[in-house]
Amino acid sequence: MSDNLLLNIDSPIDLRKLDEAQLPKLAQELRNFIIDVVSVKEGHLGASLGVIELTIALHYVFNTPDDLLIWDVGHQAYGHKILTGRRDSFHTNRQLGGLSGFPKRSESIYDAFGVGHSSTSISAALGMAIASNLKEDFEKQHIAVIGDASIASGMAFEGLNHAGVTDANLLVILNDNAIGIDPSVGALKNYLTAVKNGKNPRQNNMIKSLNIDYSGPIDGHDIFAVIKELKRLQKIKGPKFLHVITTKGKGLKQAEEDQVKYHAPGKFDAKSGEIHLKSEENLPPKYQDVFGLTVLDLAKKNEKIVGITPAMPSGSSLKFMMDALPERAFDVGIAEQHAVTLSAGMATQGMVVFCNIYSTFLQRAYDQVIHDVALQNLPVIFCLDRAGLVGEDGATHHGVFDLAYLRCIPNMIIYSPLNEIGLQNILYSAQLGLDHPIAIRYPRGRGVLADWQSKNFGNYEKIEIGSANCLKHGTETAVLSNGSIGKNVTLALANLNNPKTIAHYDFAFVKPLDEKELHTIFKTFKKIVTIEDGVTKGGFGSAILEFAAKNNYTAKIQLLGIPDEFIEHGTVERLQQYCNIDVKSLEIIFSSE
Amino acid sequence: MSDNLLLNIDSPIDLRKLDEAQLPKLAQELRNFIIDVVSVKEGHLGASLGVIELTIALHYVFNTPDDLLIWDVGHQAYGHKILTGRRDSFHTNRQLGGLSGFPKRSESIYDAFGVGHSSTSISAALGMAIASNLKEDFEKQHIAVIGDASIASGMAFEGLNHAGVTDANLLVILNDNAIGIDPSVGALKNYLTAVKNGKNPRQNNMIKSLNIDYSGPIDGHDIFAVIKELKRLQKIKGPKFLHVITTKGKGLKQAEEDQVKYHAPGKFDAKSGEIHLKSEENLPPKYQDVFGLTVLDLAKKNEKIVGITPAMPSGSSLKFMMDALPERAFDVGIAEQHAVTLSAGMATQGMVVFCNIYSTFLQRAYDQVIHDVALQNLPVIFCLDRAGLVGEDGATHHGVFDLAYLRCIPNMIIYSPLNEIGLQNILYSAQLGLDHPIAIRYPRGRGVLADWQSKNFGNYEKIEIGSANCLKHGTETAVLSNGSIGKNVTLALANLNNPKTIAHYDFAFVKPLDEKELHTIFKTFKKIVTIEDGVTKGGFGSAILEFAAKNNYTAKIQLLGIPDEFIEHGTVERLQQYCNIDVKSLEIIFSSE
Repeated sequence: MSDNLLLNIDSPIDLRKLDEAQLPKLAQELRNFIIDVVSVKEGHLGASLGVIELTIALHYVFNTPDDLLIWDVGHQAYGHKILTGRRDSFHTNRQLGGLSGFPKRSESIYDAFGVGHSSTSISAALGMAIASNLKEDFEKQHIAVIGDASIASGMAFEGLNHAGVTDANLLVILNDNAIGIDPSVGALKNYLTAVKNGKNPRQNNMIKSLNIDYSGPIDGHDIFAVIKELKRLQKIKGPKFLHVITTKGKGLKQAEEDQVKYHAPGKFDAKSGEIHLKSEENLPPKYQDVFGLTVLDLAKKNEKIVGITPAMPSGSSLKFMMDALPERAFDVGIAEQHAVTLSAGMATQGMVVFCNIYSTFLQRAYDQVIHDVALQNLPVIFCLDRAGLVGEDGATHHGVFDLAYLRCIPNMIIYSPLNEIGLQNILYSAQLGLDHPIAIRYPRGRGVLADWQSKNFGNYEKIEIGSANCLKHGTETAVLSNGSIGKNVTLALANLNNPKTIAHYDFAFVKPLDEKELHTIFKTFKKIVTIEDGVTKGGFGSAILEFAAKNNYTAKIQLLGIPDEFIEHGTVERLQQYCNIDVKSLEIIFSSE
Repeated sequence: MSDNLLLNIDSPIDLRKLDEAQLPKLAQELRNFIIDVVSVKEGHLGASLGVIELTIALHYVFNTPDDLLIWDVGHQAYGHKILTGRRDSFHTNRQLGGLSGFPKRSESIYDAFGVGHSSTSISAALGMAIASNLKEDFEKQHIAVIGDASIASGMAFEGLNHAGVTDANLLVILNDNAIGIDPSVGALKNYLTAVKNGKNPRQNNMIKSLNIDYSGPIDGHDIFAVIKELKRLQKIKGPKFLHVITTKGKGLKQAEEDQVKYHAPGKFDAKSGEIHLKSEENLPPKYQDVFGLTVLDLAKKNEKIVGITPAMPSGSSLKFMMDALPERAFDVGIAEQHAVTLSAGMATQGMVVFCNIYSTFLQRAYDQVIHDVALQNLPVIFCLDRAGLVGEDGATHHGVFDLAYLRCIPNMIIYSPLNEIGLQNILYSAQLGLDHPIAIRYPRGRGVLADWQSKNFGNYEKIEIGSANCLKHGTETAVLSNGSIGKNVTLALANLNNPKTIAHYDFAFVKPLDEKELHTIFKTFKKIVTIEDGVTKGGFGSAILEFAAKNNYTAKIQLLGIPDEFIEHGTVERLQQYCNIDVKSLEIIFSSE
C-alpha cells in the first residue's frame, strides 16, 4: 500500500477508516491531485480548492450516499467526485464520454442531485428531507452546500422560507468565500461580511428570523473544527444552517490572490501556479468581447445606455463598461428575474438597457421577459451570450432552447449575428431606438474575423430589422442559416467547391422573418434546408415551416439543428458532429443536393 | 357640486385640494363605490377594500404621476384606478374593451408599471429609481406597494438585496394583511406576524439586515397616521421600507371574516354582503375540481402521492387534499421556482409528485422544469390549471405559451385532456409510474360532463402515452384538435350536420405525437387543420408541420390557435371569437372544406 492516503480511497467507506489525525494529510493530497489534473486537463479550480476540508469532513461525518449531499452549482465538487470512486476517471473531466464537470445523478449514486445552475440545492434537499419524513426515515440527513453568491438568488430564499416552517432534517451549509465567479454583490453579501467580521451591530440574524437553527461562522479550513460542528449538528433534528468561511483557491497562492482568473484558469503550471498564456495574436475576438467593447463604445456616445448583468461581469465582458462607466453598468448578482424586471423599469424611464444574460440563464427569467418586458413592449435589449452549444459545460449550460422559447412571445425581435460585424451592428442599431424588445443571441468563444477590432470596430452600419441576406446564389436548394452556425455552411459549401445548385442565405432574424425574401426563395427553390444551433422543435426551422404552410408553398423543407434530447458535454466541434451540423456532416448532406 | 367628495375627484390633483379632515369621508365613499360596482360587475374585492386609506394617502402625499407608484400584482388597485380618472369607466372593469383588472401602462399615465403576476414591483420601482438618479432627478419618488404573500417570493428578495446597496429613492410599502388569495405561509410570514404582535424576541430585523431603512408597523386604516409617516419618509433619501398592517376586505363584514371567498366573490348584495349563489345543479364540474377530487382519491390509495401548490390551494382545488391529507399536500407560497425543484427533490426519493401550477405561472419556473426535472428525467406530474385563454384576467394571465415553451424540452410528455374523463384518467395513469415528466394542461372553468362525478369519477382507465383518438371519421379533411378546445370542433361539426368529408381527431398528446395515427392521417387526407388554445408559433400545429416535413408529406396544413399577439381581457367566448377558434368561426372555416 502506498503511503498516499488518497490512492487508497475508492469510496467514503475507505475515508471513514482513517483516523481524524490523518485528514489534514489527505486534504493536502486531494488538493495536489486536483491541481495536478486541472493544470493539464483544465476545468474549474478555485471553488474545489476552497472546500477540500469541508468535502472530506462531510463524507467523513455523514453516511453518504444514504445521507444525501447536494452541491449547489457544482463547480466545487471535484473533491467530492474524487473521494466517491471517480479518482481514476477524473482526468476525463468535461470530455465527451468522460465525467461531467458537475454532479450528475446518472454518473454516481453519491451525486444526489444534478446541478449546474445556481441556487437549486436548498429546494432539492428540502424535497428529499420531506420525503424522508413521509417515509418515516427520521435519521437520514439532507445536506445542501451553497455559496454566498448563490444564496442571494431568490430561489434560495424561497427554499429557506419554506424550510423554516418544516421539521425536515435539512442542513444548509453556507460556503462563504465572498465570491461566485466574480465577487459577490448585494446587501446580503455585506450583511454576511459584517457577521464574518464580528460586526453585526443590530444583533440581527436573518437566518434565525426564518426560524432556522443558525451556527457559525466557523473556519472552513480547520478540518477538526468542521468535523466537530458537523457531528454536533448531526444530532439536531429539523432545519439547520451552518455558516462556514472559506477561501476560494485555498492552497494555491495565485488562485487565492486572483480568484476570478483562477475560477477556471485553463492550463497552468501545477508547481508555480503560472497560467500558460496562449498567444491571442491573429485570433478572432471572443463574441463576449465584441459585445463588451461595442457596448462601452456606444455608451460613451449615448448617455441613455445602461448595462446589466446578473453575476457575469467577466464572462459577459460587461466588465469593460463597469470599469469605465461604473455608474451606468450594474452587476446585480445571481438574480436573473430581478435583472430583467429592473431592465423593464429602467426602460419605462427612457433608458436604453442592454441586459446581458447567458442564454441558458435567461430560462430563469422567462416570465419576466414575457410579463414585464414583452407584454409592455418595452425596448429592452437582451444580449444572450453562450447561445447554442457551449461545449464542456454540457447539458445544463447549452443555450439551445432560446429560439423556441422566445419565438412564441409576441413583440420579441430575435437576432443571431452571423459574425462579429453582425453583432456590433445590431448592438448599434438597437440603441438607436426600437419599437420592441430584442434578443440578440451569440455563441461562446471566438468569432471569425481576426482583424475585426482593427478593421471593423466602430464602423457601425444600421441593420434593417427583419432583413435576410443572400450569401451565395444557387438554383435548386436554398440553405437558410441562423446565426454563427452559418460559418459551417459557408465552409462546407467551399469544401464542395461552391456548387451552383446550392444557395445560402443568412436569416439572422428568426423574428420577424424576412417574408419578402422568403417568398422569393420559395418561388425559386425546390428544396429548403434550415440550420440553427438550437433545438429544431419550435425553433427557426419551425418558423420557416409555419411560413410555408401559411402561404401554401410546397417546397421540401429539411430542418437541421439540435435534436430533441439533452446534449452532453464535449468540445463544440464534437457536439456539432453529433448533431450533424458540423462542416463535415453538412458536406455530406449538401453533396446529395 | 355634490356633497359626495368622490364624484368631484377626477384626478389626484382634485384629491390634494381636500382638507386632511375630509379624507375619512372620502375613504368611506370610495369603499362604498367599489362595493357597489363590484357587487354587480364582479371582480376582485377584498384586496382593494384593504388599501383604501393607503391609496388615498399615497396620492394625497405624493405627486403622482410624476412620482411613480407601482401596485404589486394589482388586485388591490381599484381605488387607485377610481381616483386617477377612471371612476366613470370603472363599471367596464375586466370587460372586453373596458378597463383592465390590473394596472396597465397603456391605460393610464398613473399606472407606472403593468402588473398581474406577483413580486415584480420592487425590481421595477428600483429600475425607475436608478434611472432617476442617472437623470439627476433626485426628488422623484418611486413607490412599490407589495403584500406579505408577494414579498415572500424570491424575486422580491432579489430586488431588496439590490436596493440595499443603492442610494435609490425607493419606498417599499409592505401591505401586511397575512393573506394573498389564500392565507400566507412560510417562515417570513411567521416572522412578520411576530413583528406585528410586538414579539420579535431576537431583536432581528430582516429588512435592516439588508441595509434598508425600516419603519413600522403602523395601522394602515388610520389615514392620518399613514399620511404622517409617508410625509416623513418623503424627506428621506435612499431605499426605505414601511410596514403597514391592514385588513383584507376592510369595511365589509363578510369580506373581513371570509377573506378567501371575498377575494373575488362574484356578484353579491352590496348592502348585506351576501353572495348571490348560483345554482350549480346540472352544471359540469370545474376542471380544477376534477383535479382536486381525483388527486385526493388517488392519494388515498397510493401513499407515495404528494401534492404541491405555490399559493393556489383554493384556485387549484388542491385544498381538498390539504384538508384530508395535510401531511402530504403542501402550499409553499408564491414560490414557483422552489415548488418545481422541491418536486424534483421529492421525485428522486420515489414520491409521486403532483405539482399544480397555473400555466401562466409555470413561466416563473421554466428553468427549474428544464434543469431540475426534465434534464434528470424525473417523473414529476405537472398539472397546469388555467391553460389557454382565461378570460377576464386578461393578457397577464392567459396560459397560451405553455405548449410552445414545453414542447422544446426533451423528455417532456405534454397532454391536454379533451374533457373531465381525459383529465381524471391521465392523473390516474401518471401516478401508475411514468418514465418521464408530464405536463397536463387544462382550462379555467367548467368541463362538459354534468354527470361526471356521479358517473365517471373513480372509474379509471389507463391512457396509453402518445395515443390519439378518432372522434369522427371523414374523407377529405382531418381536423386535429388538442385538448378541450376540441369541444368547439365537435359543436361546429354538429352544427354543420357532421359533414362526411371532415374527420376529427383528438390529439391530446402534443408530445409524444401519435406518429402511427399521423402516418395514416397524412396518407388519407388532402388537408389537415390543427386547432389549439395556445399560440400557434411553436405549438401543436408546429409539431404537426415538423412531422409532415420530416416525412415528406405534402398535405395542406392549416394552423388555428392564438395569433402572435397578446390577447386582452374579456369573456373566453369573445376572445375565442377574436382568435377564430369559437364554434361559429370554426363553422365558417369548416364549411369551406
